[in-house]
Amino acid sequence: MAVIRQLDSLAPDFDAQLELLLAWESVADHRVEETVAEILREVRAHGDVAVISYTNQFDRRQLQAAGDFMVSASELQAARERVAPEARRALEAAAERVRAYHDHQKQESWQYREADGTVLGQQITPMERVGIYVPGGKASYPSSVLMNAIPAKVAGVEEVVMVVPAPDNQISDLVLAAAAIAGVDRVFTIGGAQAVAALAYGTEAVPRVDKIVGPGNIFVASAKRAVFGQVAIDMIAGPSEILVICDGETDPDWIAMDLLSQAEHDEQAQSILVSPDQEFLDAVERALEKLLAELPRREIAAVSLKERGALVAVDSIESAIAISNRIAPEHLELSVANPEKYLPLIRNAGAIFLGRHTAEALGDYCAGPNHVLPTSGTARFSSPLGVYDFQKRSSIIYCSPEGAKTLGRVAGILARGEGLEAHARSAEYRVRNK
Amino acid sequence: MAVIRQLDSLAPDFDAQLELLLAWESVADHRVEETVAEILREVRAHGDVAVISYTNQFDRRQLQAAGDFMVSASELQAARERVAPEARRALEAAAERVRAYHDHQKQESWQYREADGTVLGQQITPMERVGIYVPGGKASYPSSVLMNAIPAKVAGVEEVVMVVPAPDNQISDLVLAAAAIAGVDRVFTIGGAQAVAALAYGTEAVPRVDKIVGPGNIFVASAKRAVFGQVAIDMIAGPSEILVICDGETDPDWIAMDLLSQAEHDEQAQSILVSPDQEFLDAVERALEKLLAELPRREIAAVSLKERGALVAVDSIESAIAISNRIAPEHLELSVANPEKYLPLIRNAGAIFLGRHTAEALGDYCAGPNHVLPTSGTARFSSPLGVYDFQKRSSIIYCSPEGAKTLGRVAGILARGEGLEAHARSAEYRVRNK
Repeated sequence: MAVIRQLDSLAPDFDAQLELLLAWESVADHRVEETVAEILREVRAHGDVAVISYTNQFDRRQLQAAGDFMVSASELQAARERVAPEARRALEAAAERVRAYHDHQKQESWQYREADGTVLGQQITPMERVGIYVPGGKASYPSSVLMNAIPAKVAGVEEVVMVVPAPDNQISDLVLAAAAIAGVDRVFTIGGAQAVAALAYGTEAVPRVDKIVGPGNIFVASAKRAVFGQVAIDMIAGPSEILVICDGETDPDWIAMDLLSQAEHDEQAQSILVSPDQEFLDAVERALEKLLAELPRREIAAVSLKERGALVAVDSIESAIAISNRIAPEHLELSVANPEKYLPLIRNAGAIFLGRHTAEALGDYCAGPNHVLPTSGTARFSSPLGVYDFQKRSSIIYCSPEGAKTLGRVAGILARGEGLEAHARSAEYRVRNK
Repeated sequence: MAVIRQLDSLAPDFDAQLELLLAWESVADHRVEETVAEILREVRAHGDVAVISYTNQFDRRQLQAAGDFMVSASELQAARERVAPEARRALEAAAERVRAYHDHQKQESWQYREADGTVLGQQITPMERVGIYVPGGKASYPSSVLMNAIPAKVAGVEEVVMVVPAPDNQISDLVLAAAAIAGVDRVFTIGGAQAVAALAYGTEAVPRVDKIVGPGNIFVASAKRAVFGQVAIDMIAGPSEILVICDGETDPDWIAMDLLSQAEHDEQAQSILVSPDQEFLDAVERALEKLLAELPRREIAAVSLKERGALVAVDSIESAIAISNRIAPEHLELSVANPEKYLPLIRNAGAIFLGRHTAEALGDYCAGPNHVLPTSGTARFSSPLGVYDFQKRSSIIYCSPEGAKTLGRVAGILARGEGLEAHARSAEYRVRNK
């Protein structure tokens, strides 16, 4: 039984096979939605009392009052001191690089003046307060704290509020240390739909936020979808994916381990290698078999490779890129000679890793760019999480008397064409009365 | 019976009254959602056959084949020739200004190189194909065609696909002319949830798009919400609103007509004036009464003013701005002396109209900025429709061998902290084997 399937892009049924391989749809679970709707209603109506009750029930805790789910600034700093110095230094180094990269994303307000004195522009302002959801328990990743909080702080958000569940009163020191390092302003140890509701509507203890970002389980995702519109949310994330394009000249062990680093995430993760070199594909297949056996998470990775992985033979790097554009992968490695020359051909990808030395895992932690990326083909229309996700724009329009006259005539004609007489008169009053 | 209520911001119950005034929530209608879900399923399964069947049923048409709901390029040009020259020139002038303004919103890819040769950046690309929903019948607005299509074309979208229903085979020449002027590439005379489904999934005749924008009725809004994730969508729009801040020195007739131009949209539209000058508020109230009587849409406007309008007395312009930031209005008029000095105080607003001559209606048609703006307080976290809504970003990461070594060590430590051994090995292979 092969560790991973091989596909030939020139086979007549390749398109159908590729479609089958990519098929993944988040299942909307009606019972989850109903449970979530009830939790949202309760928190909206009863605030902290409801949050405490659900948290005690779901996370097996003994909270008495809202103060019991607040983490003070000194507790955050204590966690930062408590973690191993090597881990703290690594988190600080990663935070520094993430901050430096995201500084490049800041957008500035702009204006221009027309000949008649009319001024047009756009004013860019940060959101005032945002919420970051951080999963608890096993899937509690300090790197996610950095990746979600730092762009918000770089954008100038005044208050970054983090929620993280503490099932059985357990919470990761690394997560709290990351919050301290990222500059998170307030932390609440609550999770699930009740935490999303608290952030969306506000309670006595938890302030209402303008946007909620960060990954979570199906209850969290469903709650975010339900409060969308009331607050902004980020994209609902699907399983992680990598697509590697290799010319056959990179060490097969390196490429195999890159594929495995995706596959170890979860059984639904997807790892695909595309290469014009059949011998290389075979070498990577052998390397996968060998390296898989040595991994702590080999059972998860094996299912992922077998169910959702593929090695795809193509006739050229250009053909590989055409397949990649169709897939719109979350992570794309261009492990080829002169990778930069292919950059203009890439249409859809969350993050592009160029060259033989750029392991995708570097991007997960510390290269600088965000690791929150569009999954499941949504790179066709969405972008990495960034500073721009925490800024908003207001149009600026100042009409000089002369400009108002010119524009008033045009607006009047168009407004009457749409049957909106008050619009026409409002535009024309300034013309007449001038 | 007063035409509009007056509120005093210093009254003890003002906060509660303001909250009541602003209360508006889009009602999710379960039966609409079920109908929409069935339409989506049918179109996904049966393509054009289902689109034709629903269109014949809902829009009272006699379509036989997909060709019957396609509008050719020559038909578009014919409509452009057919409309009154004055209207055509007004549309062309508006399109020209909208294009010029949106040209300023184009974002460029960027990169930077670090000391060790590592290159980081972001590549910005347009979406390939987007869909624009244009309502038919009475609410068929040519200005909306310009405002939705032009930013997409400026962004570099290859194919802009417009859908517009033609109930009883009727379709507005102005809408088709606007499509021709805006550079829309393909037009289909279909609407409702079936049109949204066709754009989201694709049929034989209608190509699948990456994003769907544009307003519609509750079926359209519900369908957009349901396909969100499959494709991108714009914000679901609530009723239109205006907040005018005036120092009392602008002609009360001008301000009254600005309030009426919002109120005539629909009964749920909201018009609020805030001023420190009580005599001015009274003068505007009298002007509203007088001018309302002369309006063709006076019945709609009267309900809007009575149910959702307000004249609010404050103690200063700064207090007025504090109220505005809390409301986060779609349209904000600063009808005051030296309006630009208040600009830095504005936190939340879709579009800001500065100065006594800048009627909001100019922004609806031809000032240049987009008239698709965040409503119902969502300016706290969202922005006017713009070129950036049709572009997406890909992170760029190229590590030099030296950079990969430095980053590999940091990533290795953090990956092991998260229990992801394959990530650590993938990052470290490049360090070891160098």
